[in-house]
Amino acid sequence: MSKEGSRPALGHEVAISSRVRLARNLEAYPFTTRMSRLQGAEILEKVREALLDDAGLSGYEFSYLEMQSLKPLDRQLLVEKHLISPEFAEGNAGRAAIISKDGRISVMVNEEDHLRLQCIYSGMQLEEAWKLCGSLGSNLDKKLGFAFDKSYGYLTCCPTNIGTGIRASVMLHLPALSMTGYIKGVLETCGKIGVAVRGLYGENSEAEGNMFQISNQVTLGQTEEEIIAGISNITQQISEQEKMLRIELYRQNPVRFEDKIYRSLGLLRSARLITSEESLKLISDVRLGMIMGLLQGMELEDLNELTLMIRPAYLQKTYGEQLKPDERDQKRAELIRKKLNERIH
Amino acid sequence: MSKEGSRPALGHEVAISSRVRLARNLEAYPFTTRMSRLQGAEILEKVREALLDDAGLSGYEFSYLEMQSLKPLDRQLLVEKHLISPEFAEGNAGRAAIISKDGRISVMVNEEDHLRLQCIYSGMQLEEAWKLCGSLGSNLDKKLGFAFDKSYGYLTCCPTNIGTGIRASVMLHLPALSMTGYIKGVLETCGKIGVAVRGLYGENSEAEGNMFQISNQVTLGQTEEEIIAGISNITQQISEQEKMLRIELYRQNPVRFEDKIYRSLGLLRSARLITSEESLKLISDVRLGMIMGLLQGMELEDLNELTLMIRPAYLQKTYGEQLKPDERDQKRAELIRKKLNERIH
Repeated sequence: MSKEGSRPALGHEVAISSRVRLARNLEAYPFTTRMSRLQGAEILEKVREALLDDAGLSGYEFSYLEMQSLKPLDRQLLVEKHLISPEFAEGNAGRAAIISKDGRISVMVNEEDHLRLQCIYSGMQLEEAWKLCGSLGSNLDKKLGFAFDKSYGYLTCCPTNIGTGIRASVMLHLPALSMTGYIKGVLETCGKIGVAVRGLYGENSEAEGNMFQISNQVTLGQTEEEIIAGISNITQQISEQEKMLRIELYRQNPVRFEDKIYRSLGLLRSARLITSEESLKLISDVRLGMIMGLLQGMELEDLNELTLMIRPAYLQKTYGEQLKPDERDQKRAELIRKKLNERIH
Repeated sequence: MSKEGSRPALGHEVAISSRVRLARNLEAYPFTTRMSRLQGAEILEKVREALLDDAGLSGYEFSYLEMQSLKPLDRQLLVEKHLISPEFAEGNAGRAAIISKDGRISVMVNEEDHLRLQCIYSGMQLEEAWKLCGSLGSNLDKKLGFAFDKSYGYLTCCPTNIGTGIRASVMLHLPALSMTGYIKGVLETCGKIGVAVRGLYGENSEAEGNMFQISNQVTLGQTEEEIIAGISNITQQISEQEKMLRIELYRQNPVRFEDKIYRSLGLLRSARLITSEESLKLISDVRLGMIMGLLQGMELEDLNELTLMIRPAYLQKTYGEQLKPDERDQKRAELIRKKLNERIH
């Protein structure tokens, strides 16, 4: 079943990406809900200077993107790339995103808080993400002076973020847990221990393509290290369950397992019209097939890229902004056929 | 849309096969329901001699197959090839089928009547089938003496066959009428004018793969030529409706039409487990795609052969008689992949 050569790097079998974000506010200014337009503009300018002059991190180059000067489609594209939040994309004046060229670091200015710092790594690399995000936070603190209280910790606009202001999250691909329905038990357990489970695009989004975002709900009363360790621990456990279940499902009926994988690949390769939702569902099976060593000839990274390329905004950026939904479905099918036929077998 | 080179011969676009069968009884013997075992054996012997010595038809070589000495699987195979009826396959003693090597002529001895003569042609060739079957009937009448009444015509065991004893039928592939639901109107019209519509394997069988068998219900009060002309006429009309509807469906939304065709081909090419029922449904789309000129590289005849090869008995004859249903689905999927990947594009 397994072909070592085509196996993904350790930790990439289930975990798609690891993300840490910090909510921070400048002590010299009121929260975004109470600040004036002028104050917002001053904050933008200060953060811009602090990051673009020297973020204190070697090797990162940043772009400064004013939300109000971006077209809705370009903002949507940043959401699809997980670089800004859907709320931030609504594009009120006085907001900007400062994003490193490689997409690893993204800073939203004047979202709910003055600053939302985000670092994202592929696979299971939550500690690396925390290390980078923590350094960025410390460096900016020295330059900007973050609002901090000795007993509460970092002060945030919404009390749910107070304390560490940290959200540590791992995106997990859980097809076996989903197929078997065992995912319900996982969700219940997470709920009981204060761990949030969300879909591909955060709050209120569905678990499209069997993608689940696991993150901490509590930011107060624990150190950042404890929170990171807690999320690392629970996502590792879920990943282990998922991996065992995949093997068990395969063992129970290899042909039925393969049938599912190859049918999904067959549909992706032959459809002339396909929605984003159906694509994600089928790509989930192809990813599973690749990881189980059934499908060769394509890197997981390329499949991740394809998953992004088929999203509505990305597709419209590639093929033209005036596409009707039916035309999008047609272009999406074309793109998938091209990408999958070239490589996978 | 159309590629003349790959278009099927005229009349094969909708009609799969044309069949004429005659019910005949030897005047010297009581009907099968009242004859003794000895009389049944005598009839078998006389028919055998009459056909195997010289059927009066040049170019046909016959095989004599005693039902009771055939295994159930071999009898089932003859049913799948439309050479004997499902009832005949139950295999009571005293029954035999005499079948020409090319399968065009098949004679069941001691089915419901002493003789059931059948001639089958591909496509829309009902008149040719009648010509051959009529000749065979006349030749055998001279040798065997058929029960005939001046006012009623040929006498048959069941009164529904009395008179001409003829059943003329054409197998039509009606995907567009089925998809759109217009098939209901066709079935109603047929019912009103005394034309029977059945599935792939005659009475009480379902219209698997959008295959419909159109035949006369009445055998009395019309000449054979009138009956043949009537069925030719109605099947031509249905075929024309089907063809116009196919073009209309394509015109309305070519991409959606192609999407359906290619998805079905994609599933056939990639499934690792597939039932007979699903195969027939998907092959129906592939046939439609070939006829509409969307798919090339395979002859309709080969697709007909594949349709036969995936039937349970044929599959077991090819891959072993002890296959469980799940193993059959697996072998069927293998066979289809092999046949379709080699050729079609």
